[in-house]
Amino acid sequence: MKTSTVAWHELKSRLARIYDFHSAAGLLIWDQQTNMPPGGVPARAEALATLSTVAHEHLVDDETRCLLDTIGDDFDATTEDAALVRLVRRDYERATKLPVRLVADFSRATTLAEPAWVAARARSDWAAFAPHLERILTLQQEAAEYIGYTTHPYDALLDTFEPGATKLELETVFDELKTPLIALVARINDAQTSAENEKRDAPLYGDFDEAKQEAFGREIVERFGYDFRRGRQDRAVHPFCISFGNGDVRITTRFDREWLSPALFGTLHESGHALYEQGIDSKYARTPAANGCSMGVHESQSRLWENIVGRSLPFWQFFYPRLQAAFPEHFSGIELARFYRAINTVERTPIRVEADEVTYNLHVLVRFEIEVALFENRLKVADLPAAWNEKMRDYLGITPATDAEGALQDIHWANGSFAYFPTYTVGNVLAVQLYDTALATHPSITDEITRGEFATLHGWLAENIYRHGKRYEPAPLIERATGKPLNTAPYLRYLHTKFGELYDLKTTTLTG
Amino acid sequence: MKTSTVAWHELKSRLARIYDFHSAAGLLIWDQQTNMPPGGVPARAEALATLSTVAHEHLVDDETRCLLDTIGDDFDATTEDAALVRLVRRDYERATKLPVRLVADFSRATTLAEPAWVAARARSDWAAFAPHLERILTLQQEAAEYIGYTTHPYDALLDTFEPGATKLELETVFDELKTPLIALVARINDAQTSAENEKRDAPLYGDFDEAKQEAFGREIVERFGYDFRRGRQDRAVHPFCISFGNGDVRITTRFDREWLSPALFGTLHESGHALYEQGIDSKYARTPAANGCSMGVHESQSRLWENIVGRSLPFWQFFYPRLQAAFPEHFSGIELARFYRAINTVERTPIRVEADEVTYNLHVLVRFEIEVALFENRLKVADLPAAWNEKMRDYLGITPATDAEGALQDIHWANGSFAYFPTYTVGNVLAVQLYDTALATHPSITDEITRGEFATLHGWLAENIYRHGKRYEPAPLIERATGKPLNTAPYLRYLHTKFGELYDLKTTTLTG
Repeated sequence: MKTSTVAWHELKSRLARIYDFHSAAGLLIWDQQTNMPPGGVPARAEALATLSTVAHEHLVDDETRCLLDTIGDDFDATTEDAALVRLVRRDYERATKLPVRLVADFSRATTLAEPAWVAARARSDWAAFAPHLERILTLQQEAAEYIGYTTHPYDALLDTFEPGATKLELETVFDELKTPLIALVARINDAQTSAENEKRDAPLYGDFDEAKQEAFGREIVERFGYDFRRGRQDRAVHPFCISFGNGDVRITTRFDREWLSPALFGTLHESGHALYEQGIDSKYARTPAANGCSMGVHESQSRLWENIVGRSLPFWQFFYPRLQAAFPEHFSGIELARFYRAINTVERTPIRVEADEVTYNLHVLVRFEIEVALFENRLKVADLPAAWNEKMRDYLGITPATDAEGALQDIHWANGSFAYFPTYTVGNVLAVQLYDTALATHPSITDEITRGEFATLHGWLAENIYRHGKRYEPAPLIERATGKPLNTAPYLRYLHTKFGELYDLKTTTLTG
Repeated sequence: MKTSTVAWHELKSRLARIYDFHSAAGLLIWDQQTNMPPGGVPARAEALATLSTVAHEHLVDDETRCLLDTIGDDFDATTEDAALVRLVRRDYERATKLPVRLVADFSRATTLAEPAWVAARARSDWAAFAPHLERILTLQQEAAEYIGYTTHPYDALLDTFEPGATKLELETVFDELKTPLIALVARINDAQTSAENEKRDAPLYGDFDEAKQEAFGREIVERFGYDFRRGRQDRAVHPFCISFGNGDVRITTRFDREWLSPALFGTLHESGHALYEQGIDSKYARTPAANGCSMGVHESQSRLWENIVGRSLPFWQFFYPRLQAAFPEHFSGIELARFYRAINTVERTPIRVEADEVTYNLHVLVRFEIEVALFENRLKVADLPAAWNEKMRDYLGITPATDAEGALQDIHWANGSFAYFPTYTVGNVLAVQLYDTALATHPSITDEITRGEFATLHGWLAENIYRHGKRYEPAPLIERATGKPLNTAPYLRYLHTKFGELYDLKTTTLTG
């Protein structure tokens, strides 16, 4: 009979293969977004389908079950091997719980829904998209039952993106954020005339040579610690970060010649994801632990480097003179304080992806509440746009002019990603919690940032978050790193302090 | 019991998967040569090993044998399906004939030999490489016995690159070429002083902006018919063409700012391969017929477009004014006739990859004779450099200064590619045979070329060669297209006519 050591050795070979299939598929996707000529579409779709099918077959194979059974509980639960076995078991169970018929139906439904969503959004025609969403919702509700959950079907889907998180926990997070954020947005809005606000971000618009934009962004992320010997930067319409192991982690960027923000803050954002993936310990190579812990923890890193670092005053004390040198005609007459205000403009707009740090989570809240209501059958798909617009009015004080600017703006539901949105807010909250802990441990971090140095911050994150990959679930990872569970207080404090100063709000009422 | 129709349907699904694995592996290789950061090497090696292993496993699986047995000889032998079944059967048999142990030993031997060859070449140290070559030779001789052959073990390996070809046939080809080519090279050499010849290609050296080089090459290959909606051009140190199906066929180019030839003729060369792959009928997508017929037939296309078209006078009558416009400072004072002579300079140099049309096949002949002698154990690896230098003296009248410029110059043997070299000469010979047939059918081709038009030539090649993919073996394909088997007479005529004029040789003795 096989020993558990032998079984584990065999299982690791199998996992390495599965990793390789996913990694190859990742390269095919990266290439499709950055390089592939249009004629390549049909063959690429087939190749991707083959790779994902074979990866799935390798995972759900009876042999995987046998090896897992042989290993049983033989490993000391505190070891890395035991953690990896837990990850495989989890993946195996999720993959085998869903009937093949349901997986095929879901794949077919989303394949039809995505182009339907594109067309519906273009015509702002909710009714054209609604039947697709109804179908996907039904299938996801069914999937939740197969996957299983303790208290709420939403948890079954949430677990894919944020292992261990629950709808109840997220409701607590949003309860803590909702009232203070609505109030803060309203006060910022009252603090100035709309004419003032409209001009506030004008410094970000002009004529910016793309090669110079690229060189400027590159200097920043190299200083962050992004290693171009183990990465590269390409252009893509929808920017992303992708890892083929810690030795090859790539970012993509969208450049806009007339608007500085997409490439600049997009590069910082994706570099945050990339620093995480480049920092994962090599011992996890080709295992299920070789990627970041969860969508929320991943997003915490993109937000930390983009917003907390990259939209801070100390950061620009160092980099603004460089930006002025890169674009002297544009920035020589603009003071640092003015630029700093521009990049932190708070505005009530209908589109999530263009939202600032303060309003962003209210956009997420709209989606989260709607998703839960759909899952609880309290909301019909046909009534979704009305519910959307009502919440937008209540939380942000605006009404989208059309459904294209409202309920049809995001692709997530069309590709079946329910329970994904709240991970953005988890990321925002965690970013500050982690940053504050790093700062408490190393108060020199702020000074270093004013010198364009990031080694201490990067080192603390690498040590406490990055290197572990998926070895821990989000909750224990965060508790190990910060000594506390997910906590909204530092985040609210951060927003109140930063935007209180930026908008000259009275501080006495800001502790919210 | 399964019908042969059902079995064929299942087999095609299996073949499509195998195609997808190879195609994904191809993209990983393309990326490694064009984009991958250095840190990606170890993970990429693993991913490639996994993809090739899984492709191999799918092919040699017992199920493949069962399906092939069920199909048996049920198909009308003249149909495409029967041709595809023959291709699979061939691949299956080759793959299953070699013991796993031998495949692993070979993989290990070449993995060790390649870096050893790089180091040996750098120090021109044959003795350091010799043990690796001995090991590879022994394994390849062993492989030949497992694969099987009718008359000569060399044929077993040749069949991989040039299905159906034999050592005896190649010896006939080289017998027909050897004496006339040696004589032609000698006469060209006698026809001028070496000082004259050294200056002959001077117009190709200067300062050529790379973006302009790229734009110029791109215009040419677009006119050839290379479709950039189904392809793209990137930079690589060692240029190549790679296909992911006829909708995505990519070429790579090496640019040299100070030397026009590598990018210009390299682009034409790779576009020839690409036209072939883009022209394969979509009905062969994801089957074993979805690529070009053989290395020799493939090379015939790169040589046809690079040399017969791209180094011809009619071609430059159209393009030279454009080249002058692109680089006016360099070319405005150089006449077309002078440029035409420059790009057709014949020179006795030690390096194959830099050789001209006339000397090229003599470089190949050296390698072919040595390979055969090695396989027949008439030549020892230790004595190879001496044999090499003797042949170089006999055929080309020169002696390499070092082994780095001699027996160590090519990677082929280090990666185990015995019997590959002669396909270059097969390609050269076929190129003219095909071109002459196209011209006999459509005498307008030459005139069209002087107008920068290539549709008739491209159309004839697409109809007679490209669309068939691997559906026919080289011999029947060429006979269908030209009415004759492989034939060196047109090739020798072409060289004598073209270079007789270029070097003012007396025509009476040129029919050689």
